[in-house]
Amino acid sequence: MPLLPAVDLNCDMGESFGAWTLGHDAALMPFITSANVACGFHAGDPAVMRATVRAALQHHVAIGAHPGLPDLAGFGRRNMDISPAEAFGMTVYQLGSLQAVARAEGGRLHHLKPHGALYNMAATNALLAEAIAEAVYKVQPELVLYGLAGSELTKAGEKLGLRTAHEVFADRTYQANGTLTPRRQPDALITDASVAIAQVLRMVQHGVVRTQQGPEVAMRADTVCLHGDGAHALEFAQRLNTELQAAGVTLQAGPLVTAQ
Amino acid sequence: MPLLPAVDLNCDMGESFGAWTLGHDAALMPFITSANVACGFHAGDPAVMRATVRAALQHHVAIGAHPGLPDLAGFGRRNMDISPAEAFGMTVYQLGSLQAVARAEGGRLHHLKPHGALYNMAATNALLAEAIAEAVYKVQPELVLYGLAGSELTKAGEKLGLRTAHEVFADRTYQANGTLTPRRQPDALITDASVAIAQVLRMVQHGVVRTQQGPEVAMRADTVCLHGDGAHALEFAQRLNTELQAAGVTLQAGPLVTAQ
Amino acid sequence: MPLLPAVDLNCDMGESFGAWTLGHDAALMPFITSANVACGFHAGDPAVMRATVRAALQHHVAIGAHPGLPDLAGFGRRNMDISPAEAFGMTVYQLGSLQAVARAEGGRLHHLKPHGALYNMAATNALLAEAIAEAVYKVQPELVLYGLAGSELTKAGEKLGLRTAHEVFADRTYQANGTLTPRRQPDALITDASVAIAQVLRMVQHGVVRTQQGPEVAMRADTVCLHGDGAHALEFAQRLNTELQAAGVTLQAGPLVTAQ
Amino acid sequence: MPLLPAVDLNCDMGESFGAWTLGHDAALMPFITSANVACGFHAGDPAVMRATVRAALQHHVAIGAHPGLPDLAGFGRRNMDISPAEAFGMTVYQLGSLQAVARAEGGRLHHLKPHGALYNMAATNALLAEAIAEAVYKVQPELVLYGLAGSELTKAGEKLGLRTAHEVFADRTYQANGTLTPRRQPDALITDASVAIAQVLRMVQHGVVRTQQGPEVAMRADTVCLHGDGAHALEFAQRLNTELQAAGVTLQAGPLVTAQ
Repeated sequence: MPLLPAVDLNCDMGESFGAWTLGHDAALMPFITSANVACGFHAGDPAVMRATVRAALQHHVAIGAHPGLPDLAGFGRRNMDISPAEAFGMTVYQLGSLQAVARAEGGRLHHLKPHGALYNMAATNALLAEAIAEAVYKVQPELVLYGLAGSELTKAGEKLGLRTAHEVFADRTYQANGTLTPRRQPDALITDASVAIAQVLRMVQHGVVRTQQGPEVAMRADTVCLHGDGAHALEFAQRLNTELQAAGVTLQAGPLVTAQ
Repeated sequence: MPLLPAVDLNCDMGESFGAWTLGHDAALMPFITSANVACGFHAGDPAVMRATVRAALQHHVAIGAHPGLPDLAGFGRRNMDISPAEAFGMTVYQLGSLQAVARAEGGRLHHLKPHGALYNMAATNALLAEAIAEAVYKVQPELVLYGLAGSELTKAGEKLGLRTAHEVFADRTYQANGTLTPRRQPDALITDASVAIAQVLRMVQHGVVRTQQGPEVAMRADTVCLHGDGAHALEFAQRLNTELQAAGVTLQAGPLVTAQ
Repeated sequence: MPLLPAVDLNCDMGESFGAWTLGHDAALMPFITSANVACGFHAGDPAVMRATVRAALQHHVAIGAHPGLPDLAGFGRRNMDISPAEAFGMTVYQLGSLQAVARAEGGRLHHLKPHGALYNMAATNALLAEAIAEAVYKVQPELVLYGLAGSELTKAGEKLGLRTAHEVFADRTYQANGTLTPRRQPDALITDASVAIAQVLRMVQHGVVRTQQGPEVAMRADTVCLHGDGAHALEFAQRLNTELQAAGVTLQAGPLVTAQ
Repeated sequence: MPLLPAVDLNCDMGESFGAWTLGHDAALMPFITSANVACGFHAGDPAVMRATVRAALQHHVAIGAHPGLPDLAGFGRRNMDISPAEAFGMTVYQLGSLQAVARAEGGRLHHLKPHGALYNMAATNALLAEAIAEAVYKVQPELVLYGLAGSELTKAGEKLGLRTAHEVFADRTYQANGTLTPRRQPDALITDASVAIAQVLRMVQHGVVRTQQGPEVAMRADTVCLHGDGAHALEFAQRLNTELQAAGVTLQAGPLVTAQ
């Protein structure tokens, strides 16, 4: 029996800090199904985390930990030469901090998705990927581990028996080997919203993506990454949400439910 | 039926940070019954927290969260004008981080004791005390809340139904109203180890302490604070541990067990 | 011979940090005569400092160091129990950092104004005020020290022979003893822009301010503090700038020039 | 006319932070000729910087800025993927902070040497090297730029007309191409102090070093890096100092003085 086409729409949230505000969290919440909440290392502070968890609970949006590198000034976007033990430690620490914030608000976590440079490094560095997966496994093994589709991170999670969500991008093009076109290449980004939505639909409904080299390749799309900032973030989230549902796609966080 | 005389010996632990080492954790572990583990705001980092939790588990020492003010440069010892909401947030966050570290090592937390300036402010500021107690209550209500004996903090915990541990000091003198003699006064400290140990014994066995004004006052002593640094820290811990046991006092963390 | 009426319009600038933007620096620059540039402890980072210095140089706006407490999460607004030695150290350090940024851009500093809680504490705590003044004196004694009019800070600067700028507020009411009406009182703020501008004019032209108790008191107004954020910040800065000049007031940073 | 054999002995200093102490600064000062003072990003705080500058002045030791990556938890030892603009900014900022500390104590800076990962990255990455050299050039062009002998950093400094000091290591072996044997190789370190001292003497007196491949290669040795921690740091510094002088080598910071 086939799966009903379903997908999760996730977005980074709670990336304000102290006196500084970032993103359009409140406006975006109605259009997503899971929120990755910054945990204080690259952004977020206890007050921001609390407000974000509350908003997510109110909108029935699944809450995930979004641990980053300890680099507030660089917003966690600069690769750092950390050891697997350090990756393990910073994942455990940040995951725990958000678990407690959620518990204090009567909520529970649903997933974990590393942020920025930690996400990118874990996509290709197997040792870092395994350290992050092990952190999730040892702290809250029922969490879903979000990682780049087909990456070392999802692989590491699956090896430990964790549930994983393979993440795809609406606005990035893909290569014949299934990787994202590097950002430095001129054809890395899809700027036409309709093309981006069509790419998502094709991935969700047929499990394939057209590549820059021409042919389609298999692409597992459990969750789509939405951007929280940028001029058109809100408009695009709204449109993607509407058009996916109009096409019969169920929007929901978490592992797909098998049709009966 | 009377209580067996029993008391907890607690010590701040895990106050190293990155390349910097502080304290004599490994040497002190055998002589204490509970460890307050720094959680990253005033000291401690994920690697230090992990090593400290492991050592505590190995020595069957009860593990407590030791949240501090966000002041690494000042070691959490400088009062800051924080709001109750901020006290709540930083307690929840740091408690969660250590819970996760403990869980990853197969352990559980036993208590929470605020550090330094946060401890001192919570002893006299009822609103901060209530915020900290509420954080414990909402995140892990079975924890024991450690606070200065007779302080606003233990009061706030008891109001919420938390178990509390009233903390006393071996090397500090007391005033007729039950408060500690302020450090700026010349008679604030007890430098003779024998006198300090006698003071603890009197508190544990008879529930009273002799004051600088002469008469004894009631003093509930659930836990004694040991210092982790200083020239004689180790020697004193060892002696206190030995002499309390020789006097028939049971050394144990946690609420007193009623004699049958 | 009378002084030509002249005053400085200062504004906090460069309070963005990393990925986070704050304030309307570019828009406000044309209407002010001196900029207080955050130096990294409460806000600002090397890139923001550089951009702010460049913009100030371009608009011929005097550049000042704006050192704050080491409290990024609290934006330097939470009082901290620091020692005079610590106040000295953090002022020296931050002043030096901005001097170097300015020098690298071919500029020089004109003044120093402490930020937030450091400014407030230095207004009433003579020891902290003296420590800050001493830092300026020892690092760059030709700087103008900005402080609340009639405060301990300007007093400390004058005692050391520093030039000082007494700062007044357009939108705050004053008490009979010359202090600001505390913010918690309902009549602390002037919300009518015309009334605020009239208050500044009266201070600049006549050296007096009407108090909440009725009578006018002497008020030295060398510099007026403008706010960099808030809905009407830009509009008010523009109006104040225009109306002061229309009334014959010279707008300029630095010590008043005596009319010949 | 030949140069008198002369060399500088430099050591990282002021790497304590807040409550944490590191290194044996006071004991080592008598045996070195220049001190690299941490500036707060990887270690050091205003109080530590001040104490270190004072000690250096007292011992007539040349004072240098020792800027590091913004990574306190990693002690500036973890490579970070920073841009040249970021390297420029963090060098300017930290250099300025120490300039001010020195000025407040009546001293002046003599050199700048990047710390840890910043030093290593600048040795091989020309763009980062140029950014650091440019920072020195724009802030205080009379400073001597310390870098690994023959590295991109000394090259970048020389291109800008800066004076440079080529740094060599007593306890590291060299390769035929003049680079250090990587630490992961078993023969990277010289553990015999006599061999280490002989290597320094050969470099200082004859401008060559024997390589692991056998033959000697040219090696410019303006300054020798001494380690501030480790069991034998003090003993080795003392011996190197004594034996160099006994061999007729002048110990002094700064550019060599031509013999008349």
